[in-house]
Order: sequence, then structure tokens, then C-alpha cells
Amino acid sequence: MQCCALEIEDVPTFTRGKKFQLDDVIEAQQFDRDTLSAIFEVAREMENIEKKSPGSQILKGYLMATLFYEPSTRTRLSFESAMKRLGGEVLTTENAREFSSAAKGETLEDTIRTVEGYTDIIVMRHFESGAAKRAAATAGIPIINAGDGPGQHPTQALLDVYTVEREIGKLDGIRVGLVGDLANGRTVRSLAYLLAKYQDVKIYFVSPDVVKMKDDIKDYLTSRGVEWEESADLMEVASKCDVVYQTRIQRERFGERIDLYEEARGKYIVDKDVLKVMQKHAVVMHPLPRLDEITVDVDADPRAAYFRQAKNGLYIRMALLKLLLVGW
Amino acid sequence: MQCCALEIEDVPTFTRGKKFQLDDVIEAQQFDRDTLSAIFEVAREMENIEKKSPGSQILKGYLMATLFYEPSTRTRLSFESAMKRLGGEVLTTENAREFSSAAKGETLEDTIRTVEGYTDIIVMRHFESGAAKRAAATAGIPIINAGDGPGQHPTQALLDVYTVEREIGKLDGIRVGLVGDLANGRTVRSLAYLLAKYQDVKIYFVSPDVVKMKDDIKDYLTSRGVEWEESADLMEVASKCDVVYQTRIQRERFGERIDLYEEARGKYIVDKDVLKVMQKHAVVMHPLPRLDEITVDVDADPRAAYFRQAKNGLYIRMALLKLLLVGW
Amino acid sequence: MQCCALEIEDVPTFTRGKKFQLDDVIEAQQFDRDTLSAIFEVAREMENIEKKSPGSQILKGYLMATLFYEPSTRTRLSFESAMKRLGGEVLTTENAREFSSAAKGETLEDTIRTVEGYTDIIVMRHFESGAAKRAAATAGIPIINAGDGPGQHPTQALLDVYTVEREIGKLDGIRVGLVGDLANGRTVRSLAYLLAKYQDVKIYFVSPDVVKMKDDIKDYLTSRGVEWEESADLMEVASKCDVVYQTRIQRERFGERIDLYEEARGKYIVDKDVLKVMQKHAVVMHPLPRLDEITVDVDADPRAAYFRQAKNGLYIRMALLKLLLVGW
Repeated sequence: MQCCALEIEDVPTFTRGKKFQLDDVIEAQQFDRDTLSAIFEVAREMENIEKKSPGSQILKGYLMATLFYEPSTRTRLSFESAMKRLGGEVLTTENAREFSSAAKGETLEDTIRTVEGYTDIIVMRHFESGAAKRAAATAGIPIINAGDGPGQHPTQALLDVYTVEREIGKLDGIRVGLVGDLANGRTVRSLAYLLAKYQDVKIYFVSPDVVKMKDDIKDYLTSRGVEWEESADLMEVASKCDVVYQTRIQRERFGERIDLYEEARGKYIVDKDVLKVMQKHAVVMHPLPRLDEITVDVDADPRAAYFRQAKNGLYIRMALLKLLLVGW
Repeated sequence: MQCCALEIEDVPTFTRGKKFQLDDVIEAQQFDRDTLSAIFEVAREMENIEKKSPGSQILKGYLMATLFYEPSTRTRLSFESAMKRLGGEVLTTENAREFSSAAKGETLEDTIRTVEGYTDIIVMRHFESGAAKRAAATAGIPIINAGDGPGQHPTQALLDVYTVEREIGKLDGIRVGLVGDLANGRTVRSLAYLLAKYQDVKIYFVSPDVVKMKDDIKDYLTSRGVEWEESADLMEVASKCDVVYQTRIQRERFGERIDLYEEARGKYIVDKDVLKVMQKHAVVMHPLPRLDEITVDVDADPRAAYFRQAKNGLYIRMALLKLLLVGW
Repeated sequence: MQCCALEIEDVPTFTRGKKFQLDDVIEAQQFDRDTLSAIFEVAREMENIEKKSPGSQILKGYLMATLFYEPSTRTRLSFESAMKRLGGEVLTTENAREFSSAAKGETLEDTIRTVEGYTDIIVMRHFESGAAKRAAATAGIPIINAGDGPGQHPTQALLDVYTVEREIGKLDGIRVGLVGDLANGRTVRSLAYLLAKYQDVKIYFVSPDVVKMKDDIKDYLTSRGVEWEESADLMEVASKCDVVYQTRIQRERFGERIDLYEEARGKYIVDKDVLKVMQKHAVVMHPLPRLDEITVDVDADPRAAYFRQAKNGLYIRMALLKLLLVGW
């Protein structure tokens, strides 16, 4: 399992101007600061649109296919809701693996060329790293990567950065504590990567020894002039940060070593005590689902931003669908 | 497996008047006689709406999520049809169990708080008794219980009572024969419970010894002044009743004792001979699916009401969706 | 596994004139030459409709249920796209087998009588030959057979003939080479059958010995005065034909005899060399999915018609839905 977060660098997929046009959403790295800012502007409009009844008809007559080679109900629902909130229609496929099943053996490219005949945009989830890029190379219609293997889940990265901006009001000068499984979590890796596009950012890594942030991201941050430090003191970090970004320790990463898992898992919990030291304007984020790495009594605090963060996923996806299908 | 049919008693969920408002549909017991009557009135309107083309737009712009933790195609289809017949849109989830899968372990409450961000109403099917009530306590949007474990399936109960009224023209003074598996069938238990809200009702229980109606319901009927009796003579009961409500003997309740199952199963069959003794205005009902407890040659008789009953499920669900989303 | 392709002969399901009305789509054999021509005319209109934005509302307010007893994502997606491109709505069932699951055991007829209450048309995929005919006999609404067991998949047959006409510009006088698995492929059998309705057709069979075209189709063609011959020389056939219709050798037909499969599979490949001998106006067709029986370098040639053929499936299904729901 390899992460390719650093392959591409700041290659804007569109030129701003009269005709703002996004072609595909494949990797978090494809977005530069201007693109992010433009997407966030549209996402903000979407917040207003979503609140209105009977709902927008911006994408009326458009059809989106969710081509999921592995199930991900959460992600699929938020994309389908986004499309329908804009008046568009959806074709759902949760067992797209069937296309390439043993007996049949169709290539991804052939599947894409067939499915693109039935729809205007494809939202794809695949088990193989790079599948979305291959699909985009084949398709004449826009492709959105809804996760392809371990490396990429760009709409999650976008909604995370959008949430920081919405909650704190800025991205330049932000202080973020990344907590939990920093070795395996693609969310924290992508977030660190995208935050490096902003000025005067400081990042704190707080994680059990077995799941520390890898050197590639640290080196990258250094090369971009982003300050970072590792810390074993969650309380101190929490007191200094604008954002405490907690993540789940994933049991499946530990194999037989349940003992190591249990040790790692209990080490940094965001609870009422952490809230006490946090600043008034700061927030707690989490990509969800959570187990007990944030205690339930934190939920009622206005600084618990993780359900708002999940909701922001809807706005970001609405914005991307609009930009890909009808443009700026 | 415990049934909690008697926990709550006649607590109306709304006050009739200018602003008729239903909040959630969780248990058959939540409905009093006035509420039932109001729902049935709306269901009757829905029969007219459904016949019109190109269809109503009452719920245009509204989004319903079917959050099914276990598959139930029949129930899901009728809810989704109800929503679409009213111009609304649907997000489908048939494998919602994935949310709380081993590795992830998200609580139902967290799932609800995420999903409610994507939709306007949640129709939920769950394997655990009480899950719908927990969901309703968490959600800021309406929840409809489409079955949670052994205890509750309130929309089935409503469509049963609605069918009795539509077919016979009244509920007060009705005579109903409940036939088949009375020990395990939640439909007959809920029906007995709801019928007790009406005047001069008489209920006959006709069942093999191993699956007799339990004492809690009998005691409840007695306490409400509802006449009931047990009988082993289906022909005699059929000749006296307005409604013969047949149910399926469920093989899975008998474990290894296939012999007991086979004995129970063949004992009370509704066939042409039963039809002969039934009154002209009387009807045969069944919650479906049926095996051979009603013979196929009964289907052509106008008194065979079970497919109309299934169709009434559509009208009841349309009515509930309307009442929950836009009110009276 | 039996094929009943020859049971019914030229029984038109409608009389052309003021009230063109199709009732059900069950078998390729139900269509005579006039019906085919009428359907193709509507399909041609659909090509224009599909290109328009925001899309047609011809079927607004209509509801289609896809009742799939076995998954077939490709077929399901094209039907659902067809319905939505015309403004209609869809209820999806990919695990309809659940209706007749062990414990429940409902008959197909009971399922149909329930589901027809929720929808305006049923598109059905079933594992049993004859299931669609049984459903149509029960239902009061139109049924489209989307494949029932080995014998029938009439919309595939229609789209194949439509593609020949669209690509070559005629059906009378056409020369078609059927290549690959002719013994088991229902597509080539249905295509041969339908082509026999046209004048001066010549068919070439090119297949490994173990999967030769069966005598019933050969005898049928002879009885209709259709010329046919078997050939082992793909290059020669390709040089003479208007259409080279390639099919996949299906591994599952060979059981343990992988050696026979591998031998059969490699024998007749459509590649650049085949393209070289083909006439300029001729085309390569394939029902998809393909493995390597057409090499990937053929795709870029304008004579590679198989992805256009897949797209024609959309137009044919749009046409059928229109004809079944609102008529000519």
C-alpha cells in the first residue's frame, strides 16, 4: 500500500476567468489555492440553495452514475443527496465489481465506455490506486474519484479544508493538531498537504509511536516552509490549536497485535478535559466514523464540529457537481 | 424476544386543530382513535392522487432516505413508491449494517446524525427492538419505523386497520377472526391492540396449539372490554366474521421440530370451502407473503382482499409521508 | 437448459394504425417486420431526445420497477437511464430473490401482484426460462423481459438488429458473419432468427468445433430461404461481410475442460489484420463484455461499432418504455 500524495504538484485543472471549467476530480493535489477558493465559494452558495424548498433545479435533466466497486454507503449517500438537492437524477451501482467478475473479466476501460453512454457524470469508488485516473483518461464525461484504494479520496480532503475555513474563518495562520493514526489515515495526510498551500500554518502531530506521521509529509511541509512539531502532550497542543483533528485508530492495521492496537487506541482521547483547555473559538474535527476516540459527552459542546464537517461534505459535493456539469 | 406492545398507551403525538403535526412514526401504540381517523382520511385522498397522471408534486424537493439495516424489498419498495408518487426523491440504503460493521463500530446515533444531514426524512428498518425510538430521540428530522426487530412495524398495523375500514365500511362493531400463528406474528398482535380502540369489537383466535395468542394481549383486550374467544373451528368462525385475517406459520420459529411445523401449518387453511360459509360482505386478509395457507383458487373471489390490502400500504405510507413532511 | 426460440412465430402484438400499442416485451419472436420497423423509428427519435438538455418529460409521473432476481448491472443501468432520460422515475430491486427466499417461499405471481400496485411498468430479470411470460400473464401492467434464464433477452436482440440497420443503412440483402460461441450465445441465435425476417440475407457461421451453431437455427434459416454457410476462415468471411458479429467464448460452459476452453478461445480473434480485409463500410459488433476476442487496438477504428451498439441499447429501451407506457 503506497501513498502517492506527492506526485503531482499544483497543476491547476482550469484557468479562472470567463469560463471556469473543472474536468475531473481525481486527486487532492490537483487543486491549487485559487481553485480551492473558487470551489469553497460555490460550496457556500450551496449552503443557501440546500436550505430552500422545493430545491434547486440547476442540474435538472442531468444524470449521475455512482459506480462503486466497493460499498461505501456514507460517501455514496452524500453524493446522491448532493445531486438530488440540485434537481439531478442518479443511477446507483453498489456492486460494480460484477462488471469485472471472474467469468466476465471486462476491463475498467470497457466498463467506463459502456456506462458513459448512460449518464452525464460518473462518481467512482474503486479498490485499486490509480483507477480513477484511468477512468478519466478513457471517459468523455467528468469522473469524480470517491476513493480509489489507499491513496486518494479528494472530496474528503476538500471538505476538511472547507470546514476549517468555515469554522475558524481563515486558513492562513492556522494552527492544527492532527491526532491519532497519522501513519495510515489518508485524511490527515491530505489535510497536511493542502494546508501547506496557506501562509504561516503550524501543524502539531500527536500520535502513538506505532502510527506516527511518515517522513514524506514532514519533509514536504519543511520544504514548503510549514512549521510542524511532534508532541506527546495532547492537552498542551489542544490549548494552542485552532483545530484539533482527531482520527480513528484502525484495528485492521494491527493484524494479530491486538495488544498494540488497544494500547494505541486508548492513548489520546478527546474528552471534556481536552475541551476545557481548548480556546473558545477552536473546534474538534473528525472524518467519522468514530469509536470512542472522542467521548460522547463532547458532542453537545458547540466546538464539536464533526457533524457539521460531515454536512459540509454535502456542500462540497454539490459544488463539484455544479462546476463539473454546468461550470462556473 | 420480547414484545412491548403494551408499554405506551394512547399518547397522541399531535393535537388536532389548525396545525395537525405528526413528528415520528415509531409504534402502533402511539396512535389514538382520532389520529387513526385523520391518517385514514389523508390515505383516502392519496387513493385519488395516485390514480392521476402525471402525478402529484406535493413532496417535490423533499428527500427521503431508506436506511435499511436488513433487506426488506417489499416494505422498501412501497415506501419508495409512496415518496415518488408524491413527487419526492429517495436515497436508498439496503446495507446500512455496513455503518456499524465490525471494524468501524459506529453507533446508531452517530449514523443518524450523519444521514440526517443528507435528507428530510428517514425510513428505518433495524434488527434491534427499540432502534427506531433511539433514532427518533437523536434526529432533528422525522423517523418512520419500518420494522425494528420483533416488536414493531407500525405502518403494517395502520394499513391493516385501514383495510378493515375500507373493505367493511366501519371499525366499531366489527368481528374479526385472527387465524394462524398468533404467538409470533406481530401483525395480529398489533391489529388486536388497535382494534381495542373501537366499540363493540369481537375477536376470535383460531390457531394451532403451539402458536396460540399470548396472555398479554388477551388480558389487554379484557381490560378494555373487548370480547374475545378462542376457537378450533375455522368454519364456524368464518361464517360469523366480517374479516378472516389469515397469517403464515413461520417455519423458522420451530427450529428442529419440522414435524410440529408441518402439523401446525396444515391445520387452518382458507380455501373455497371457507369462502362458501363466509358472508357476502366479509373479506379475507393476509399480511403477505403467503405460502399455501390461502389456496390460490381463493384469489379470484372478490372477498379476497389481500392484494388490495398490500396496495393500501402504499396509500398509508403516502399519507404518513405527507403528514410528517408538510403537515395536515 | 433449453432454448425455445422457435416456439412462437410472427404473432404481432399490436396492429399498426391509429392506436399503436405494445403490451409486453417477452420474446424476440413476438416482433414481426413491421413492429421492428416501428420500434426502430421511435428509437431514432430517442437519439435526438437524449441529446437535448434538460431532457424529455414524456414519461414524467411514470414509475418503473426493475425487479431483478439476479444482478445484471449493465442491463439494469441502461433501463434505468432510459426511464430517467424520458423524465420517468425508478424503483430498484437487485435482490428480488429475497421475495421467494427459503423461509418465505412466495410465488412469482404473488410478488408480481404486490409489486404492480407500486409501479406502472416492471422490467424483470429472472433465472428461470418462462418467468417473464408468467409475470405478463399475471400483471395488469406492462412487463419487459430483461433476460429470463438461458432462452430470452429480447431487448438485446432488438438493439442488435437496430445497430445493423443504423450502421449499414439496410437489413435486406445484408451479409453477416457470426463468430465465436454460436452454440450457447443467445444473442447470435436471436439475431439469426430476426434477420430471417428480411430479404436476401446471408449468414456465415465461424466458430470452434465445440461451440458450433445448432441445427434448430440452421433448419429454421433454410425453411425461411435464408442462405447460410459454415466456414473456418475468418479472414475470408470478414472480407465478404457487412457485419462481423464477434462473441465471447464463455468459460463456464466448459466445466473442467479448461484445455478445450483455451483452445476455443484463441481460435478466432478480431484484430488489426481482420480489419485490413474488411470492407470500408463494414462494422465489427459485439454484445459485450469482451475479453480478448477483439483486440484493444481495434477500438480506435471507426468500424468498431460495439460501444455504439451498447449505446443503441439505451435508445431501444427508451423506445420500448415510451411505446408500452404512452403508446405510439
